[in-house]
Amino acid sequence: MGLLIVLSGPAGVGKGTVCSALRGKMPDIVYSVSATTRQPRQGEVDGVNYFFKSKEQFQEMIARDALLEHAEYVGNYYGTPRDFVDRTLASGKDIILEIEVQGALKVKEKFPEGIFIFLMPPSMEELKQRITGRGTESQDTINHRMNVAVEEMNLLRHYDYAVVNDQIDAACHRIQSIIVAEHCRSERVMPYLAESQAAIEKA
Amino acid sequence: MGLLIVLSGPAGVGKGTVCSALRGKMPDIVYSVSATTRQPRQGEVDGVNYFFKSKEQFQEMIARDALLEHAEYVGNYYGTPRDFVDRTLASGKDIILEIEVQGALKVKEKFPEGIFIFLMPPSMEELKQRITGRGTESQDTINHRMNVAVEEMNLLRHYDYAVVNDQIDAACHRIQSIIVAEHCRSERVMPYLAESQAAIEKA
Repeated sequence: MGLLIVLSGPAGVGKGTVCSALRGKMPDIVYSVSATTRQPRQGEVDGVNYFFKSKEQFQEMIARDALLEHAEYVGNYYGTPRDFVDRTLASGKDIILEIEVQGALKVKEKFPEGIFIFLMPPSMEELKQRITGRGTESQDTINHRMNVAVEEMNLLRHYDYAVVNDQIDAACHRIQSIIVAEHCRSERVMPYLAESQAAIEKA
Repeated sequence: MGLLIVLSGPAGVGKGTVCSALRGKMPDIVYSVSATTRQPRQGEVDGVNYFFKSKEQFQEMIARDALLEHAEYVGNYYGTPRDFVDRTLASGKDIILEIEVQGALKVKEKFPEGIFIFLMPPSMEELKQRITGRGTESQDTINHRMNVAVEEMNLLRHYDYAVVNDQIDAACHRIQSIIVAEHCRSERVMPYLAESQAAIEKA
């Protein structure tokens, strides 16, 4: 069985950038494809960029619990098809799901055996600077975003790992290390050991 | 706080070789120094190769629980001084302890927060070949060693990780990954986050 790796973290922390960099570094890992009701853009391919669905198809997927999580955003649905994840894991490959914090917690309810990685800003000070940095927002907007960020940071306790995104390469190296380490966890290796010992005893 | 990393595994699996290779690759990690009652050999330095102790000193260390584990081997005592481990961890450095499986389990009783890594042969078949390979042992000796090896392999369930020693570089890479990953575990990162948030709220 492969591992389900969920990469999440507060808005603005750089999930997408880190995930894109990982694709280049870990080509053997599968990247989850979301389902959406929004129209395909020029060049987007069904099953590669997204699984494009009608609103009726999407609602039917929700009804039969075919999505690990879903959300509505600017009038369109987005979600993670469970079937694609299941098939990838059953083929023995790892799959990475890059997702915002609320969605990640929903995935955890359905998939507690997943590896949940929380991408962190180097410091709360740094996150504050990223949020206020553009200098075009009102103080109210900044305060609101900062409160949301602090709330999102507090969700860290639901995750297995915290990876600081100080530099993209360093963050990728930590994530790669986590994946290697998780494959070495003794409870994953023991079933193979038992098979191997049984083979020896028969011989 | 640094991490205590315990590297163990069945006799003949190559713990010493892997640990030596790790020293070259991870110079920032401290390698535990054992205490012993055996005489120093030419060139051995007290506090570097071993802490050399008299039998009385060693027994006094046992009496005041100053050793994480100890054993007698060919008439001499060997043990792991707890003080050296504690001071290293308090200085913020990781420390690696390379030790046989029985000693590792004793360390776990006193230090359950350690990271316990079990070095494995690529297969039980391979371990059998290593044990029978020299061709100079009686069938009884081989059977005895194989039984011991199977028993030692069954101790894997007490460990956090299993690392296959198929190639030294590959085994070292897995161990390095485990150490990086363990430093990212969210329960280790959360205290720093709380401090950082408190600083932000005050500011």
